[in-house]
Amino acid sequence: MMIVMQDGSTDEQVAGVVEKLHEVGAEAHLSRGEFKTIIGAIGDRERISQIPFEAMPGVDSVIPIMRPYKLVSREFHPEGTVVKVGPALLGGDTFVVIAGPCAVESEEQLISSAKAAKAAGASILRGGAFKPRTSPYSFQGLGEEGLKLLAEARRVTGLPVVTEIVDVRDVDLVCGYADMLQVGARNMQNFLLLQEVGMQEKPVMLKRGLSNTVEELLMAAEYVVRGGNTQVVLCERGIRTFETATRNTLDLSSVPLVKHVSHLPIIVDPSHATGKHELIAPLCKGALAVGADGVMVEMHPDPKAALCDGPQSLSFEEFSRMMEELRTIAPPLGKKM
Amino acid sequence: MMIVMQDGSTDEQVAGVVEKLHEVGAEAHLSRGEFKTIIGAIGDRERISQIPFEAMPGVDSVIPIMRPYKLVSREFHPEGTVVKVGPALLGGDTFVVIAGPCAVESEEQLISSAKAAKAAGASILRGGAFKPRTSPYSFQGLGEEGLKLLAEARRVTGLPVVTEIVDVRDVDLVCGYADMLQVGARNMQNFLLLQEVGMQEKPVMLKRGLSNTVEELLMAAEYVVRGGNTQVVLCERGIRTFETATRNTLDLSSVPLVKHVSHLPIIVDPSHATGKHELIAPLCKGALAVGADGVMVEMHPDPKAALCDGPQSLSFEEFSRMMEELRTIAPPLGKKM
Amino acid sequence: MMIVMQDGSTDEQVAGVVEKLHEVGAEAHLSRGEFKTIIGAIGDRERISQIPFEAMPGVDSVIPIMRPYKLVSREFHPEGTVVKVGPALLGGDTFVVIAGPCAVESEEQLISSAKAAKAAGASILRGGAFKPRTSPYSFQGLGEEGLKLLAEARRVTGLPVVTEIVDVRDVDLVCGYADMLQVGARNMQNFLLLQEVGMQEKPVMLKRGLSNTVEELLMAAEYVVRGGNTQVVLCERGIRTFETATRNTLDLSSVPLVKHVSHLPIIVDPSHATGKHELIAPLCKGALAVGADGVMVEMHPDPKAALCDGPQSLSFEEFSRMMEELRTIAPPLGKKM
Amino acid sequence: MMIVMQDGSTDEQVAGVVEKLHEVGAEAHLSRGEFKTIIGAIGDRERISQIPFEAMPGVDSVIPIMRPYKLVSREFHPEGTVVKVGPALLGGDTFVVIAGPCAVESEEQLISSAKAAKAAGASILRGGAFKPRTSPYSFQGLGEEGLKLLAEARRVTGLPVVTEIVDVRDVDLVCGYADMLQVGARNMQNFLLLQEVGMQEKPVMLKRGLSNTVEELLMAAEYVVRGGNTQVVLCERGIRTFETATRNTLDLSSVPLVKHVSHLPIIVDPSHATGKHELIAPLCKGALAVGADGVMVEMHPDPKAALCDGPQSLSFEEFSRMMEELRTIAPPLGKKM
Repeated sequence: MMIVMQDGSTDEQVAGVVEKLHEVGAEAHLSRGEFKTIIGAIGDRERISQIPFEAMPGVDSVIPIMRPYKLVSREFHPEGTVVKVGPALLGGDTFVVIAGPCAVESEEQLISSAKAAKAAGASILRGGAFKPRTSPYSFQGLGEEGLKLLAEARRVTGLPVVTEIVDVRDVDLVCGYADMLQVGARNMQNFLLLQEVGMQEKPVMLKRGLSNTVEELLMAAEYVVRGGNTQVVLCERGIRTFETATRNTLDLSSVPLVKHVSHLPIIVDPSHATGKHELIAPLCKGALAVGADGVMVEMHPDPKAALCDGPQSLSFEEFSRMMEELRTIAPPLGKKM
Repeated sequence: MMIVMQDGSTDEQVAGVVEKLHEVGAEAHLSRGEFKTIIGAIGDRERISQIPFEAMPGVDSVIPIMRPYKLVSREFHPEGTVVKVGPALLGGDTFVVIAGPCAVESEEQLISSAKAAKAAGASILRGGAFKPRTSPYSFQGLGEEGLKLLAEARRVTGLPVVTEIVDVRDVDLVCGYADMLQVGARNMQNFLLLQEVGMQEKPVMLKRGLSNTVEELLMAAEYVVRGGNTQVVLCERGIRTFETATRNTLDLSSVPLVKHVSHLPIIVDPSHATGKHELIAPLCKGALAVGADGVMVEMHPDPKAALCDGPQSLSFEEFSRMMEELRTIAPPLGKKM
Repeated sequence: MMIVMQDGSTDEQVAGVVEKLHEVGAEAHLSRGEFKTIIGAIGDRERISQIPFEAMPGVDSVIPIMRPYKLVSREFHPEGTVVKVGPALLGGDTFVVIAGPCAVESEEQLISSAKAAKAAGASILRGGAFKPRTSPYSFQGLGEEGLKLLAEARRVTGLPVVTEIVDVRDVDLVCGYADMLQVGARNMQNFLLLQEVGMQEKPVMLKRGLSNTVEELLMAAEYVVRGGNTQVVLCERGIRTFETATRNTLDLSSVPLVKHVSHLPIIVDPSHATGKHELIAPLCKGALAVGADGVMVEMHPDPKAALCDGPQSLSFEEFSRMMEELRTIAPPLGKKM
Repeated sequence: MMIVMQDGSTDEQVAGVVEKLHEVGAEAHLSRGEFKTIIGAIGDRERISQIPFEAMPGVDSVIPIMRPYKLVSREFHPEGTVVKVGPALLGGDTFVVIAGPCAVESEEQLISSAKAAKAAGASILRGGAFKPRTSPYSFQGLGEEGLKLLAEARRVTGLPVVTEIVDVRDVDLVCGYADMLQVGARNMQNFLLLQEVGMQEKPVMLKRGLSNTVEELLMAAEYVVRGGNTQVVLCERGIRTFETATRNTLDLSSVPLVKHVSHLPIIVDPSHATGKHELIAPLCKGALAVGADGVMVEMHPDPKAALCDGPQSLSFEEFSRMMEELRTIAPPLGKKM
């Protein structure tokens, strides 16, 4: 951490900052220029970060230097982590496709989707049993009934299932059915939920919040890993910007960026990011090309009758056609499918 | 809701949309122009909003027209709601100041802050016992010990207390101590928490999420009110934008906007919005001038030693000076203090 | 400027950076910690800022420390600048109101507006002769005919006039009529236009770009002042965010922020920021309360017939009523009107 | 356009809106529901769009329905436009790579870059002679001297050249040297410049503004095409968001979106979007995969000595390696290189 002193700060003010650093066992390196004095703080990041330097007299600004996460950083763990979900491996040389309906609506809807996903080559089935919805008047999911249907779909197709957990009180319930726990975008900074899933032995898919930076996503993952659960897969699903033509703005540059600084796998969800089914196939190809470990895609037997997110869902036929395209381009991009 | 058909949509496609509307008991009004056909849907908003028109063949786009919230709208309840927190009234002709430290750190820190707040004219004491923090390595609050100290501060000063609730499992615990429940910005769309506080008999302060629109804030409030708890106060605390000079961008225009469309009181928190103590006093005056029902401000006996948010905390002296200024300008702005 | 080296950077890489600094006559201060080496660069800011450190081997990141502007900073010029526009003084103890129609449409429309503005207490008349419009199909202004009408309105009322300049080729033309040159939000980084107005002897109003930070606004002002023209007034007019309820998000915190770091006056334009006439009066009061030197407001004899920005224009009566309110609250806020 | 009336609007108010529509020769279609009355306006879009409905009594909101651009829309011109720049064709089945330094610095730097670009398979040479810079203290380009060097590089390598035009007064000058005119992001809404290049017979590359929507990009293109110049190539180069890890957020979803609604070619510039050379290759592959017609990439003989944008420039070797990768994946993605 660098502490930049104001122009004209006094020796006493500089000494005050240095003393604070010494109190937490850190070293202070002074650089005095003609106009500016800068103090470099070197020591325990946790203890240093809790000193409110900006409120001290003579301090102009504080500039963090070390990354605020550790366990999820590539510096700490240079090799890429591979996360196992049933037979599927995320983070290795396979491009993994997760598919299924936004929400579990009925046995018929889910089983037919699971079969179509499996037939087209998907490796993991998705489906929401608990749906966080902006409006209290929207469909909120089938709850445990939905979890049972997911287990049934796994039995029928052999596909492992991922489903969202929204309530800390439901951890045991959801773990009883799911192969992978999804923490949704709106809960990315629900730190209690992160702590709970951090204590489970199930892999976790952590979606980037609508207004969270990549660094905050990694810090949220740090919560999970610090609890002991290292099986974390990140998911880029678009951020909120001024652009209104798409529901959110898919930030594909986050994929190579995460690969650079972290060892965790990262996948892409273009369905929620765009809200438009005609953009799904191009963006899945884009995700593969920028180096993602997989994609998560919404599909539905009859998108126009979906209780949730119909406009962004692919029909079985569209999904199958897209899988063909991905299979063609995966090998030259260095990925298996 | 208006459904706009694509250029060249067929009669059959138009009929398909109309039929869907009839299925949910709604009426369809057709406008056929030279280039565009538009279908106006009139009926039950909840049922209409669940039809995925955008996935239907021939549909170009769907345009919502009615506001997606009802109970919190001024159309539904023309008179302004007044929320009572101990002796303080939010939403009436008094400008209410809520003050206290970001986090409860110790008995001495809290009691001295409470006394200073009271002496300077604040009406409600704030203080966090449970702190949601971006980094797992930051101070997370004193927990129940903090709640006990808040109760002690209330006993000493007579000020009612507001504190944040972050865990649905803590509702009874927090209700046992607090006079008002705060739902923080990161939990604005934690719908389970909204439902829980919606079933309590304590007033709720609901903070706007960092990346949430005013409409979404009102829909979050709708979750609470729908549960039976009408004692909701909204809080503008800045939104996330590209500007980095302030921590967030305080959106003071949201205050007259909310007043226009909703009957709920709204206050402003400039401390979290800006992260800079030198901006607090001007923005509190700004909040008063745009019509807010109050402000919430962080203060600390020794900001440079604070465990949380020191740079944005006012000293007791700064707070007292600001209260003087507010008292001077409140009457010409039509408010008591 | 601080150069942060990567973990494991070699002595040779550090020496490479130090050598580059010496080449431009700067000093290098090394801080070597257990994990990180940091190099503080002290010297001529212009020369240092042109070294592409981030492309040098072993460099992790570069952190600017000194403010990138100089002439407009309060450090350089501690006293506030007062800008004179005809008899009006911006930046002193008077709260200045600039009013008039968005676009000059006709003699009758402009003269009646100018008279109403004058009667209600405005000090400067605004009106656009050249209108930059997002759509090529929108009304683009009357051009020189509009400038002539502005001069006529000045003759009739005695109010100085401010009008936008959009074309570097029009500098002489516009200077021949206007008392103050407005550089619009879309041209805030039209550096050629900034250079041209920087060579004129007319005061300049520089509007913040829709997606520009306060720092960038000050750097744009630096372009003007560097050309020799120190008579610059900044204008906050809202930034582009995800919020759609208002046209832009008015950032009132920029006002005390600018006052803190710069000596230039700053005013607020709530008309363009919000696009909603019902928000103008509250936000003008807010602007006054946060310390702005004035406001610029759109008014129109018949807002519903305006060729441009009707929805955000005040009627003469609304404008007059707002002026009453401002006059009441200005004195307790330390301003004359 | 749909005009939504307020709850409780009177018949007279509805009639007022209808009358305004009739005045401009448009038809009004009324939909009266239990709560809302909606008026559909069908007629000449230009004339209707100039009526300020939102300022009329009884009007709640106005909802545009027709796209605000015409000449650049795919509805107007279903077949994709192919733009010819020297021997290169943008918009056809070839993936075109434009490469070169950010700024022309010297003959040696430019010629060596041009040769390296040519050798690695690029089709067009880029290089800035006029550089719009945020700071007045940064290198502003070589001006006409730079243009001459570009012409020389073309002579030596046969590559056509694209360079930015920033000043309306320089149109003839730049046209005398360049094969393609670039309108930069900061000038995307410099409507005078758009009009000028719209009257030239040179192809135009129009970069998306940092805070402009795709719709606004298309409206800017409409300005150019309306002037008679149909040879327009759009360029996605990142938008401004809250994310700070990359300089801007590259919006790759804009590519399939533009392809859907417009017939104009679109390329991607990952260099300016990210500011990080390690992200360039993955994002170029991503651009190819989502369907872009090409990319524009910065390269430099010695990135660490570049006068502009060094951190994001590829070395010749990095560029050459990336071209290999693109050549491998282009055919399975249906593109030639």
